[in-house]
Amino acid sequence: MRLVVALGGNALLRRGEPLTAEAQDANIAIAARAVAAVAEQHDVIVTHGNGPQVGLLALQAAAFDAESPWPLDLLGAESEGMIGYLIERALIGHLPGRPIATLLTQVEVAADDPAFTNPSKPIGPVYDAEARTRIEASRGWPMAPDGTGWRRVVPSPAPVRILEILTIRHLIAEGILVICAGGGGIPVIVGPRGTVHGVEAVIDKDRTAALLARDVGADGLLLLTDVDAVYRDWGTEARQPIGETTTEELAALELDPGSMGPKVGAACEFVSNTGSFAGIGRLADAGAILAGEAGTRLGRLPA
Amino acid sequence: MRLVVALGGNALLRRGEPLTAEAQDANIAIAARAVAAVAEQHDVIVTHGNGPQVGLLALQAAAFDAESPWPLDLLGAESEGMIGYLIERALIGHLPGRPIATLLTQVEVAADDPAFTNPSKPIGPVYDAEARTRIEASRGWPMAPDGTGWRRVVPSPAPVRILEILTIRHLIAEGILVICAGGGGIPVIVGPRGTVHGVEAVIDKDRTAALLARDVGADGLLLLTDVDAVYRDWGTEARQPIGETTTEELAALELDPGSMGPKVGAACEFVSNTGSFAGIGRLADAGAILAGEAGTRLGRLPA
Repeated sequence: MRLVVALGGNALLRRGEPLTAEAQDANIAIAARAVAAVAEQHDVIVTHGNGPQVGLLALQAAAFDAESPWPLDLLGAESEGMIGYLIERALIGHLPGRPIATLLTQVEVAADDPAFTNPSKPIGPVYDAEARTRIEASRGWPMAPDGTGWRRVVPSPAPVRILEILTIRHLIAEGILVICAGGGGIPVIVGPRGTVHGVEAVIDKDRTAALLARDVGADGLLLLTDVDAVYRDWGTEARQPIGETTTEELAALELDPGSMGPKVGAACEFVSNTGSFAGIGRLADAGAILAGEAGTRLGRLPA
Repeated sequence: MRLVVALGGNALLRRGEPLTAEAQDANIAIAARAVAAVAEQHDVIVTHGNGPQVGLLALQAAAFDAESPWPLDLLGAESEGMIGYLIERALIGHLPGRPIATLLTQVEVAADDPAFTNPSKPIGPVYDAEARTRIEASRGWPMAPDGTGWRRVVPSPAPVRILEILTIRHLIAEGILVICAGGGGIPVIVGPRGTVHGVEAVIDKDRTAALLARDVGADGLLLLTDVDAVYRDWGTEARQPIGETTTEELAALELDPGSMGPKVGAACEFVSNTGSFAGIGRLADAGAILAGEAGTRLGRLPA
């Protein structure tokens, strides 16, 4: 089977953990083990989020020079380099002899996407109320509530087209394990004469993962995170994990627009459009999700 | 002809210019025009330096958190993402319809390379004497003279093997313009069981460019920078640019180990090993160097 495996940025640099290279390395080692186990059985294309990382890189750039902020497309490209390298490096150790390639990926968005006037994607660390007020004032970054704290929010336009899709298909056809479209891809606008411009945004990686899975004809899309499933009645005592489900049931749920919402939306979109399979669950459960024994599952895998 | 074109990091983020995204964009636009003109006539593989950029990213990371420095291999990976994206994006505008791919590249170095105990590669901005003392004390970074100022120096081990070389060859065979081995490649050590570890170093991009050119069977290697040629008697009134030359003449010169030295070494190494062509000169002179009308030239292009 051909599977697109999407790793949550929050699973690679976790809330509450120190924002250090060591912590990131340790989490990526766990993710790589999970991906490698799937890749031993199936053709895998890996993609990943970058929310915490792109927010951290923005903080680093602003700490050095607050007057000339580094734009989000550049920071997104940096995060594709950093996270892609760490995943590729870790996978090599688990899959000796298997060719692995990390491809820088630009994703076209629409210049008039309504997301540009309504920043909604949380990036970077979670702040308490006091830090929120300080950072909002000093950096001018809009903030929105996230759990019990606050996070910076940025525009998150819909992915329209993966610019490097032909190259991705070539690499897959050669049997190469491809890591691509990191952080949802670097957001760009394509001008009338084919010129490309970067934009200040972070595309949701789950939506791009669904587009990628469709574009490469994947049999399944695995959205792996640090939560074991989608829940009914999330946030209440009565909450219950959802196993096998339908797009209708998922569409009726009220979900967090910053985390589970995009995953469910991407899974439903992919399955509605292709009749293939999508699963949402914990990194360590990747194999169990494919076996129908864990996670939230939608659609059908080939027999 | 198949040509490897190496763009100097100093030509993309120039000394004395502000370290802003805008300045970098403007220089990359110039570089992309030069590369596109060559790519209209020949098969081109692009590589680039990252000295100023990796130094800037290190300053950004240290400004945010001086206690947990971001290691140089991560910063190198970030710079491959950032610079690769900017070059690819700019090239698309000049070469409509031409597939272009930026590949993250790891380069193996030897764990016992003597460079690890003798940091020599300058990265980041040029400091005056006062700033040098301040940064050396606060960051613990070794500094060395560069022109009239000082720059941070880091270990620069020799490139041994490009890990993704098979993928690079596949992409070239598909007619894709490949951007790879940025910043000389992310420096890694390969352990006994095939596991890969990052190391604190920045590989010289000219040496990696020579290795890449040999590995892809290039007919020529163009090392493009902001100086028009290698000079006899550099730094004196009697200085004279060298046009057509030999490895013997170049070996006899005394050159700056931080800039022209590695270029001349890489050109000589490539031409001695392959009998092919190498040219060193200004970005805007790329076509003229190939035509034998500018730059310092070594060896022979196919008729």
